[in-house]
Amino acid sequence: MKHDLVTDVLHAIRQVTGDRQGFVALHEPSFGRRERELVLDCIDSGFVSSVGNYVDLFEQRLANFLGVKYAVAVVNGTAALHVALLLAGVRRNDEVFVPSLSFVATANAVTYCGAIPHFVDSAPDTLGIDPVSLSGYLEEILIQKDNTWFNRRTGRRVSVIVPMHVFGHPVHMDALLEVAARFDLQVVEDAAESLGSSYKCRMTGTLTGLSAFSFNGNKVITTGGGGAIVTDNQELAKKAKHITTTAKIPHQWAFAHDQIGFNYRMPNLNAALGCAQLDALPDFIVKKRALAKSYETAFSGISGVSFVSEPAHSHSNYWLNALLLDDAMASQRDQILAVTNDAGYMTRPVWQLLHTLPIYADNPAMLMPIAESLEKRLLNIPSSPFLITGA
Amino acid sequence: MKHDLVTDVLHAIRQVTGDRQGFVALHEPSFGRRERELVLDCIDSGFVSSVGNYVDLFEQRLANFLGVKYAVAVVNGTAALHVALLLAGVRRNDEVFVPSLSFVATANAVTYCGAIPHFVDSAPDTLGIDPVSLSGYLEEILIQKDNTWFNRRTGRRVSVIVPMHVFGHPVHMDALLEVAARFDLQVVEDAAESLGSSYKCRMTGTLTGLSAFSFNGNKVITTGGGGAIVTDNQELAKKAKHITTTAKIPHQWAFAHDQIGFNYRMPNLNAALGCAQLDALPDFIVKKRALAKSYETAFSGISGVSFVSEPAHSHSNYWLNALLLDDAMASQRDQILAVTNDAGYMTRPVWQLLHTLPIYADNPAMLMPIAESLEKRLLNIPSSPFLITGA
Repeated sequence: MKHDLVTDVLHAIRQVTGDRQGFVALHEPSFGRRERELVLDCIDSGFVSSVGNYVDLFEQRLANFLGVKYAVAVVNGTAALHVALLLAGVRRNDEVFVPSLSFVATANAVTYCGAIPHFVDSAPDTLGIDPVSLSGYLEEILIQKDNTWFNRRTGRRVSVIVPMHVFGHPVHMDALLEVAARFDLQVVEDAAESLGSSYKCRMTGTLTGLSAFSFNGNKVITTGGGGAIVTDNQELAKKAKHITTTAKIPHQWAFAHDQIGFNYRMPNLNAALGCAQLDALPDFIVKKRALAKSYETAFSGISGVSFVSEPAHSHSNYWLNALLLDDAMASQRDQILAVTNDAGYMTRPVWQLLHTLPIYADNPAMLMPIAESLEKRLLNIPSSPFLITGA
Repeated sequence: MKHDLVTDVLHAIRQVTGDRQGFVALHEPSFGRRERELVLDCIDSGFVSSVGNYVDLFEQRLANFLGVKYAVAVVNGTAALHVALLLAGVRRNDEVFVPSLSFVATANAVTYCGAIPHFVDSAPDTLGIDPVSLSGYLEEILIQKDNTWFNRRTGRRVSVIVPMHVFGHPVHMDALLEVAARFDLQVVEDAAESLGSSYKCRMTGTLTGLSAFSFNGNKVITTGGGGAIVTDNQELAKKAKHITTTAKIPHQWAFAHDQIGFNYRMPNLNAALGCAQLDALPDFIVKKRALAKSYETAFSGISGVSFVSEPAHSHSNYWLNALLLDDAMASQRDQILAVTNDAGYMTRPVWQLLHTLPIYADNPAMLMPIAESLEKRLLNIPSSPFLITGA
């Protein structure tokens, strides 16, 4: 029988997830009795908005889960990253290094600061920023003047690197932090996709002192819409809370605001949902890892495609399971997407590389051989925790 | 017996609202069975985030209530105003006219566009922008070059006026629109506080073709946190939806974004709450107007203070009831605040005038005799719809 990659992929997905009624989404949330209870309790309390206990509780419990001191809950992951970048000292016209292989919010958060996303290449194993190629690139383009590093081509100050842990797989953080230290760059983790993933036994989002999480509906846990800024630094946590609540100076009745703040606070209603989801998070991760293991086994026997496994020294939440087609099979990607979606199993390619979007096409960018190769060959497959057979 | 304004005010508030258990807030939401039902239905559907029927339903029903064609639901009123200003064509370094007597979000939304808030004075009867003093001021400071109006002092283009309907009381819109037309200025209504108020039988938020609403927890109706951009223009509505959903080009699986967008979409969970609140809105407004009538009567016999009634030609939602102290009594404001809050009735002064905040102190501003007088003398009193006696 002729080897048919498209059919093989569809069969493997079906074999792992079982025959399902209706369309199988890429990632759906799971809600139980606890979600219903807490949300109703929130409504009965009357406190559904910017005041209420669930926001505090969600922040404390998220911080406890991560093993950090502070979490500040906000409306979404984009807002979290925007504020984290401001707290890291990103200024107007700075350049900020972000992966080209990421969701557009990573770059937009930089743009909201008035700064310029500078796009960098990925590592083939983590899919995230590659510290090795980045190091060589920075050696080439950066220059130090008066204890500050500048892009010698554009003359702009460089201030921050934003590693994004793609699909939950941790970036090579030790090597990245070494490169960052060499050029006095702050590192802000975009941990939007990697809640519960760890790198060398430490949770992503806690590896650099300042990070952003997302609890959008498609994430490992959801608050409807939500995000959080996470830090061990009390001063930064205070600033994060202040700037996300319109920078109002606390007072029983007076309204004074001491900086340009934002209306980014997570509503209590959403935090109530989040508290219940945090209860379920360890179970979600166990199931998601079991699902990944099943996919890994199912795809191990199919030539032309490989399952994307967690990188060395890491423990991934496998937020979105991914397949990587062999070079020779890249041309079949769109047919695989069409056939699997038509069959009721949602699959999708990775994001268009950000430096190729017209809005960012004129931004500084390094050569992108790995990201360009990955972009053509990656696709995501259904990843909801309840898809594991028997769950 | 010695006349004591502080005691009189406290007694009048107590008389109107009745003896209440616990602290009486300035404005609390009311939730019933319908809120519980719709939020649970939303959770049971699994669609709590950026996809789901309740967002569409909330938008349609809000538009129907207002009698306009389109509403686009977003995370909060600040985001709504930010996007409305961008849609109105506000560009970096433009000057945008905003009332100094407003919540800071009105000015911040301008700042987020990279534009400069230019502060203007209020009318004594509406508390909002005074078209008469504004007209004289614009005659003095604006100059036309190549069909564009500029501030002759700063050289910056002027593009938009943002009337905010303070506490629900409509601005003198006919006169304001006449002034705006004379100087080719767009008008974007900040209707954050005035859902359900009308001016000459037309709802605020529908008077200029483009407006922003808020559904924060303290507003007439709440979605936890939320807002909406409202317009009759199909093209603007499409743009509003596009820019608030990361400017992603619709496609079954591909990710392309054609402009710098925002993650501003209202989550479905919050929209579910909002749908139930819209059902109750007409009843809330009836009760709030009855409460205002009671206050008006109770304060009519007290000298030294007057109740702020709706301006001529308007029908106010009386979002926050307000008292205006006589000039001679302004020095007693803080004592009234202290005594009423201590007695368990929340009261507060109006916002600090925005042009006096350090962050905006260097911005262009006209002379502010009315706003400065109002700021010293205004205070808000408890305004929840359920406070009306017998409700």
